[in-house]
Amino acid sequence: MDYSRLYSQMARIGVGKPNSAATPAQPDLISLVYGLPDPSTVSTSDLLAATELVLTEHRASALQYGPSQGLSELREFLAERLNEREGLTLAPGQILLTGGASQGIGLIARTLLEPGDTILVEAPTFLGAVRAFRLSQPRVIELPVDGAGLVTEALDTALARLAGEGVRPKFLYTMPTFQNPTGATMPLERRQHLLGLARQHNLLVVEDDAYGDLRYDGLELPSLLALDRDGLVVRLGTFSKVLAAGMRLGWAAGPAPLVRALTALKDDSGTSPYISHLALAWAGGGRLDPHLERLRRFYRERRDAALAALDRYCTGYVRWSRPLGGFYVWLELDDAVDAALLRRAADRLGVDYLPGQACFLSDRGERYLRLSFSFVDPDRIEQAIQRLGQALAEAARAPERR
Amino acid sequence: MDYSRLYSQMARIGVGKPNSAATPAQPDLISLVYGLPDPSTVSTSDLLAATELVLTEHRASALQYGPSQGLSELREFLAERLNEREGLTLAPGQILLTGGASQGIGLIARTLLEPGDTILVEAPTFLGAVRAFRLSQPRVIELPVDGAGLVTEALDTALARLAGEGVRPKFLYTMPTFQNPTGATMPLERRQHLLGLARQHNLLVVEDDAYGDLRYDGLELPSLLALDRDGLVVRLGTFSKVLAAGMRLGWAAGPAPLVRALTALKDDSGTSPYISHLALAWAGGGRLDPHLERLRRFYRERRDAALAALDRYCTGYVRWSRPLGGFYVWLELDDAVDAALLRRAADRLGVDYLPGQACFLSDRGERYLRLSFSFVDPDRIEQAIQRLGQALAEAARAPERR
Repeated sequence: MDYSRLYSQMARIGVGKPNSAATPAQPDLISLVYGLPDPSTVSTSDLLAATELVLTEHRASALQYGPSQGLSELREFLAERLNEREGLTLAPGQILLTGGASQGIGLIARTLLEPGDTILVEAPTFLGAVRAFRLSQPRVIELPVDGAGLVTEALDTALARLAGEGVRPKFLYTMPTFQNPTGATMPLERRQHLLGLARQHNLLVVEDDAYGDLRYDGLELPSLLALDRDGLVVRLGTFSKVLAAGMRLGWAAGPAPLVRALTALKDDSGTSPYISHLALAWAGGGRLDPHLERLRRFYRERRDAALAALDRYCTGYVRWSRPLGGFYVWLELDDAVDAALLRRAADRLGVDYLPGQACFLSDRGERYLRLSFSFVDPDRIEQAIQRLGQALAEAARAPERR
Repeated sequence: MDYSRLYSQMARIGVGKPNSAATPAQPDLISLVYGLPDPSTVSTSDLLAATELVLTEHRASALQYGPSQGLSELREFLAERLNEREGLTLAPGQILLTGGASQGIGLIARTLLEPGDTILVEAPTFLGAVRAFRLSQPRVIELPVDGAGLVTEALDTALARLAGEGVRPKFLYTMPTFQNPTGATMPLERRQHLLGLARQHNLLVVEDDAYGDLRYDGLELPSLLALDRDGLVVRLGTFSKVLAAGMRLGWAAGPAPLVRALTALKDDSGTSPYISHLALAWAGGGRLDPHLERLRRFYRERRDAALAALDRYCTGYVRWSRPLGGFYVWLELDDAVDAALLRRAADRLGVDYLPGQACFLSDRGERYLRLSFSFVDPDRIEQAIQRLGQALAEAARAPERR
């Protein structure tokens, strides 16, 4: 494991310093910190076959400069796929290929925000996005999330208050499906309520859908983009979780004028045609859906291992979410547990988690933790959560705190 | 040939509309418009071997998120290579991997420029860069280029004038080696004069070195970065011309604080680790230098074909540069040639070139054309320039103009 890489990822997701335990000195540490996809889910022979296909069938295009908006064949593939599966009517021109969803987030900030603008975000949320937004110095308003995602009543209240002040927020940033970090999914009614409010206030909605393909239970819900009838939603997708994060390939889909504006500020002469061809050769020909089915089985087993271990080892000290998809379980400490003692005990016992503070912009979150089950095999997940249970018991029993 | 791709590239380099002749309706058109590297210079088997190496030896790292600054192994490779070849003492931390040199240009603009800031550029220049700078609304001052590159006396005068006005320009953007579009290379004395002026005025120099590896004649000159003793140069490099533009892989090397600042605004979670590993596997193990030697032979033959054909067919109508490297020959029309008539004749005869206007910010350049010899094989280059010679003869002879 290359730790410099992990630390960099860490900095990105908002943890200032690695845990002292997270150094090579303690090799048995089990980290549930990072939302890393597991590269073992992608087969080397599939990638080699895709590479051969690209270099024989699409050589000149893959090795050459491409359009700023991204390889048209891949945009066509994505548009067709979204249209077929969700009843959309996207044209390829409504899709911009990006260097991961991250670049889409950055482009939205640079395209839309000026210092002093107001934006709305969930709390807790993916702080990497908020940090990218903050480079443009907006005023950021946090809205609460519960077990059913963004609390749209709070959105209603905030929008009414802002309208009263004569403020029109530039956008709402939301993860309606398998939210990071809570794992929560907004039910249809909330989605419709959200879009009704967006319509009423002419509010742009940035839908981050990094995990949407990774549903382990329940029926698929329409995305905000699919429900939108007013051209108010831009959706961010990524190949990071389904192919490989190291490809740095994502996309933004939404109203054509906005996509054009995002493209105009994309100053890297277009996302790599080579990577785009590779992803298309890998995913095309009907190969994506069976792969997604395997992925869901793979990560479902890990989610199930995490939930079973929480039931077994952590009951009585924490409450937690039961995510239907994605990579995360969100834990809230019971009052009896001291968060600082827990951290020390977890360090000593060799388990690491993302402290809740890394998911709130304001000074909150010390009663929460996020566990990622994506990157560790089921046995190690159980072992990690057993250690967490011990740490919880110690942090709850500590005489000076009871 | 995918024309949408060409048109997009065209838009990027500043040509508003394609020539009417540049449509599939006239398949015999020979285009010397674009500075496209020839993908045939990269071997499929080398790329497949590099892919296999990456997927066996560096699988987890290539497929995973990496550091925002870019894969450390590739930054180490680049630093070592630059240090060995040019006597530099770069640390890997002084290198940022980017999505082509384009992204480095965009990051420099976003990091350094605020509306109203002053920057200095060459005229003619690579307008794609100037367009990226202009997104930040600077005041752009053009400095003349002659057969020996940027006229540093003009830089001296401009800096003195600006200092008198109390204006400190944010940077100078220059291509000292095989300049785009003129092909000119600054001799050592000018480089030293330039750096003396930079020191005197504490001026940051952005050295765009996209073509530096492609020298066909003469001795290598030290880059501005290599000559700099004051931490005033940031150099942009790219794999676009030596490996493949479709990879979108470049780098910025310079003072550590500036590289850190550029990294902070790089909002795509780092340039693709997969592509970075692929480039390293392809270039490493001593494979890069023999490849560069082959590339130089390959493009030298094309340059020689272009110059020989110009001698043979175009003498008496135009003067042109004799570039020692890079992709371009720059032509200046003799007074007798009517530029508009030339355009029409060239369209009819089936040869296309980049009009000089696409290389100047101000309303100039109609007496110039840029020919790219990189993308067309030597026979077709000769054929294209023969047609250009006919077009020149017609545009010079036209009775209404004489």
